[in-house]
Amino acid sequence: MTADLAAALFTPRSVALVGASADPAKASSRPLRFLRRSGFAGAVYPVNRRAGTIDGEQAFASLDALPEVPDHAFLMTPTAATVEAVRQCGRLGVPVVTVLSGGFAEAGPEGAARQRELAAVAAESGIRVVGPSSLGLVNTRTGLTLTANAAFAEPDLPRGGIFVASHSGSLIGALLSRGAACGAAFSHLVSVGSEVDLGIGEICGAAVADPDVTGFLLFLENLRHADRLRAFAREAAALGKPVLAYKLGRSRAAAELAVSHTGSLAGEDDVAAAFLADCGIARAHTLDGLLEGLPLLARTPVRTGTTPRVGVVTTTGGGAAMVVDQLGVLGVEVAGPTPATLARLAEAGAPAAPGAIVDLTLAGTRYAVMAAALDVLHASGEFDLVVAVVGSSARFEPEVAVRPIVDRADRGGLAAFLVPHAPEALAMLADAGVPAFRTPESCADAVAAALGRRPPRAVPPAPPAEPGPTRPLDEAASYAVLAELGVVAAPHRVVPVDDVETTGLQFPVAVKALSPALGHKSDVGGVVLGVETPAGVGEAAREIRAAVAGRGGVEISEVLVQSMANGLGEVLVGYRVDPAVGPLVLVAAGGVLTEVYADRSLRPAPVDLDTVRRMLAEVKGIASLRGHRGAQPGDLDALARLVVAVSELAGRADVAEAEINPVLVRPAGEGVVALDAVVRLFERP
Amino acid sequence: MTADLAAALFTPRSVALVGASADPAKASSRPLRFLRRSGFAGAVYPVNRRAGTIDGEQAFASLDALPEVPDHAFLMTPTAATVEAVRQCGRLGVPVVTVLSGGFAEAGPEGAARQRELAAVAAESGIRVVGPSSLGLVNTRTGLTLTANAAFAEPDLPRGGIFVASHSGSLIGALLSRGAACGAAFSHLVSVGSEVDLGIGEICGAAVADPDVTGFLLFLENLRHADRLRAFAREAAALGKPVLAYKLGRSRAAAELAVSHTGSLAGEDDVAAAFLADCGIARAHTLDGLLEGLPLLARTPVRTGTTPRVGVVTTTGGGAAMVVDQLGVLGVEVAGPTPATLARLAEAGAPAAPGAIVDLTLAGTRYAVMAAALDVLHASGEFDLVVAVVGSSARFEPEVAVRPIVDRADRGGLAAFLVPHAPEALAMLADAGVPAFRTPESCADAVAAALGRRPPRAVPPAPPAEPGPTRPLDEAASYAVLAELGVVAAPHRVVPVDDVETTGLQFPVAVKALSPALGHKSDVGGVVLGVETPAGVGEAAREIRAAVAGRGGVEISEVLVQSMANGLGEVLVGYRVDPAVGPLVLVAAGGVLTEVYADRSLRPAPVDLDTVRRMLAEVKGIASLRGHRGAQPGDLDALARLVVAVSELAGRADVAEAEINPVLVRPAGEGVVALDAVVRLFERP
Repeated sequence: MTADLAAALFTPRSVALVGASADPAKASSRPLRFLRRSGFAGAVYPVNRRAGTIDGEQAFASLDALPEVPDHAFLMTPTAATVEAVRQCGRLGVPVVTVLSGGFAEAGPEGAARQRELAAVAAESGIRVVGPSSLGLVNTRTGLTLTANAAFAEPDLPRGGIFVASHSGSLIGALLSRGAACGAAFSHLVSVGSEVDLGIGEICGAAVADPDVTGFLLFLENLRHADRLRAFAREAAALGKPVLAYKLGRSRAAAELAVSHTGSLAGEDDVAAAFLADCGIARAHTLDGLLEGLPLLARTPVRTGTTPRVGVVTTTGGGAAMVVDQLGVLGVEVAGPTPATLARLAEAGAPAAPGAIVDLTLAGTRYAVMAAALDVLHASGEFDLVVAVVGSSARFEPEVAVRPIVDRADRGGLAAFLVPHAPEALAMLADAGVPAFRTPESCADAVAAALGRRPPRAVPPAPPAEPGPTRPLDEAASYAVLAELGVVAAPHRVVPVDDVETTGLQFPVAVKALSPALGHKSDVGGVVLGVETPAGVGEAAREIRAAVAGRGGVEISEVLVQSMANGLGEVLVGYRVDPAVGPLVLVAAGGVLTEVYADRSLRPAPVDLDTVRRMLAEVKGIASLRGHRGAQPGDLDALARLVVAVSELAGRADVAEAEINPVLVRPAGEGVVALDAVVRLFERP
Repeated sequence: MTADLAAALFTPRSVALVGASADPAKASSRPLRFLRRSGFAGAVYPVNRRAGTIDGEQAFASLDALPEVPDHAFLMTPTAATVEAVRQCGRLGVPVVTVLSGGFAEAGPEGAARQRELAAVAAESGIRVVGPSSLGLVNTRTGLTLTANAAFAEPDLPRGGIFVASHSGSLIGALLSRGAACGAAFSHLVSVGSEVDLGIGEICGAAVADPDVTGFLLFLENLRHADRLRAFAREAAALGKPVLAYKLGRSRAAAELAVSHTGSLAGEDDVAAAFLADCGIARAHTLDGLLEGLPLLARTPVRTGTTPRVGVVTTTGGGAAMVVDQLGVLGVEVAGPTPATLARLAEAGAPAAPGAIVDLTLAGTRYAVMAAALDVLHASGEFDLVVAVVGSSARFEPEVAVRPIVDRADRGGLAAFLVPHAPEALAMLADAGVPAFRTPESCADAVAAALGRRPPRAVPPAPPAEPGPTRPLDEAASYAVLAELGVVAAPHRVVPVDDVETTGLQFPVAVKALSPALGHKSDVGGVVLGVETPAGVGEAAREIRAAVAGRGGVEISEVLVQSMANGLGEVLVGYRVDPAVGPLVLVAAGGVLTEVYADRSLRPAPVDLDTVRRMLAEVKGIASLRGHRGAQPGDLDALARLVVAVSELAGRADVAEAEINPVLVRPAGEGVVALDAVVRLFERP
């Protein structure tokens, strides 16, 4: 199946250009011109209702009139005619269509209805659909320039091993032309559009085994078809082919934009970040980092633990400091060599002052000095990656400080940033296979991406459930669900409001309204804390019943009485099935500041202990529980076990959400305990 | 004086190249070659102890042997010989020397001593010194290519209006070559080195009135000579010449690096940010943003209030979203047009869906459509700046969507980002004067810098005091200093430990050890809270005396008794004289999380109420005091008045630091009150 799909997508023997225009000013005139210019060897059938000639070729009046069933049809028809055209292709047995037209999911309720109809047509006939809103796809090796993107008027498409897939059609043109300008060369470029059928994962997956494809660049606006994306990423990782993604939506503004632009839910950016990392997909945050990053990824082994050790050697302290600064912003610390290595540098004629950067100064602009420095740093075994930063000499005298890097290209663990504009030196480095960067920002971006990625999770988690209505459980029932996973709540009893017997709980206790209908109990007077006597419990229960009936509009017959507990701090632990990426577990510092500082860590669920330890390290607000500034450390081991347990809700298809807020963290060795919880179940037949 | 300095620096009639080498592989051979190639019309005197010829020119054996006293000497002597060479220049009456050698402030105690000697020589003789560690300076218009930077082998230096000054010598070469590649052209490029005498501010100030200089690019590693930098920035602002700076040290790693690299204190990055903003200097965070930003700054009026209104019009939603996303990360929100303007767009033939971006889609790749959109958006008056983002058509068909931008260049309030690699279109835009950008990151960086800058403060604050030893005042004396400025502390009395009479204060009270020697009273048992009776005060006082004697090693005879107070939240307000930039005032959320989240706002002091209101808006942790999520709002007006008052400590030369921690914030209208404070005075004769 994949082979057939791959063939129809990327190596069709014949293509139909439905709606091709004879007016060269129109975008729909371009594919025929591009295909002819790039020497596509298969049959090309322009189809236009008015027939006539297009660029001197006879057009066909309809799909029916073609001499054969084409392997692939590019539909450039008006929006209103598109679904019918797809239906016709399906009837004829065309295996794949690519749909240029917009006016579907992104275009309000009417467009959404059209998108559903298109999906239904595809499902019925079995035809596979790229788009709608796809600017087309390109296979540079066969001359399949099946696109309306103006940038493909490029006289010579640079052929290489990089597969590009993009939600934005414009970006395939931008990456092509920018790639040509910086030596990146492509095997395929695909504008996937709004993915009514074939998603970015499935399209990339169709090419992943192609030996001529060496890596993937993704431009993502959303995570539709996340399970397919994950499946592809796992295959790519197994084959050692790096995947680097730029994902829109880091700011709130852009996340909202993506919704209106593509009709798809963009989701929160940290969800996307966690998902991509979990799939082993590296993420670039700059456009140049995306374009320049793959060579470094290809030469950098995927890391499984330990902090990466990055060294920087330079002829210019200021230039190197730009990279170090930007790396620091991205959380990658640069380490200086040990005193022993510094001594060896001095012996080798490449002395440098102690510090994070090996700064050879202007003295480093001699072949022997830079070469000696690189050799000593390599031999030291102290660095996973050495970034060589070369100053002004790189522009007109690449032989002095760039050549020694080129001559050590086969070593790996080496990258370069050139401070001046130095295209010849960059080309020397690229030809030799040394990952090289044009700006300090793209260099740091790619280094952080390459060293930060991890292998994809060994066993993929369950695919996301269909979103649907949910219903909450009350606090006691929520505890019961969590107890099955081993999550311990503070001792509690459920008692009738009118008959508050001795609960046997240790005082003081908290008394809480018990009802699935009360989302925020304390907002409506549903919680009384610090009750010291049995009589007080009865009084509190009656108060609560009156308060929640009055302010909350909810009649209750039972309260939950719970022993109060003391600890060092409170943490929020949550679980939810995200509509795009599926089960997620999250940890956040408790309290209002968590939200204000956006201070949380999340991962696709389930997670293991090692993963949770990394999550806890990411939450700044629990610094005191880590013993910051002499604080008594909390039992983070117990907290980590609780997070693992909560994440195992991913094994229960009926649970939509769970939130334990707070989890009370006691001193190290004394455990953690849930003080409130709510679980929501899917309402499914 | 400035004119003389400017002449000797930038338009010398004669230069001496002291230590010029005949070996073309040596950096010290370059200046002669560069000066000859660039056609410098003045006299050039190579000086070399061995005399002989250099590049076919007769060298002089010593400075004494020259036929005249040169206007400017470039010293390329070995470090050890440098101070003597400067002394000799001073004796001869050379007005300015530029010192290439390193081995001064950055080179340990020995280097620091050498730097002090050099400073003394300069002060004695009145000679002005650029450097040490300066790679030289360049005036492109006179061919004064007085530099050892290899990048100046550039065959044709692009001459323009941009003055570059850099702490890093390598960067002048990088900016030159990168500028040439992107159409930026320079009047001067100066490597200022470690500024033993002439600092970046004074050097730029010497050129600020030059009518051929249209703007300034600064590459900063530190804020040495901050008062001179401020004075220059004020002059530049008065002349309407924009100043754009890239400042290293955003990450902690780089801040530490700057110390070892330049021997100068880098300071905290938010201090630098506040200082630059206060001077009216815009800040770029990317190298490309620095290079590409000045044209936008030059055409964007400096704003004094109100949120900037940025619109984006595009032919490619994905390309535009990259800019919007990055702007959002930088805190600039993009606003969509009003419904009325959307209606006018549709009438004009440029329809767009509602949303933050005016997305013309592929339909926008026609002159008439893009032109109509630009005209409607301009006429709407709804935008301070419209960013036009053009997709793939920009590469080969600039006439369709780039030309309409070019044709509206005279309007201002317009900038462009081109998504593909499109050098011809960029050149069209640059020639027409439209600020244009190569990457979404540089575009957003420059837009945020241009719209975020403010006019320099009207009256410059006092220059920074000399750092020196300080001594703390006790809490009561600290309150007294603050009371003079109108800062109110909670009611308190100082009483002898052995004679705790009725204080007349309302109970409950806090009892606190009183001694300037106790930095953190509560850490050594020096504070007892919630005391309810006069007898309790006596008991607490005795307890405290014992505790601080035992745990703190401090004998006290008095305690401070203070009424306890309730409020909505606690804030830290601080003041200090920063060694680099002078008096600063800061506000932070109270508690340990302030530090964990690095959540504070600071400004050079004194500040006015408007400024403090902006500061308070920047502190995330006081969201609840702003009424976040239904919280009762605090009296932020009173808090703002308190911050203004504290900032007026800048008028007292004897105060080094003050910290009120906490300031208790009561509900709106009920004021604020200091609950603890410590003031430190300079210990000066």
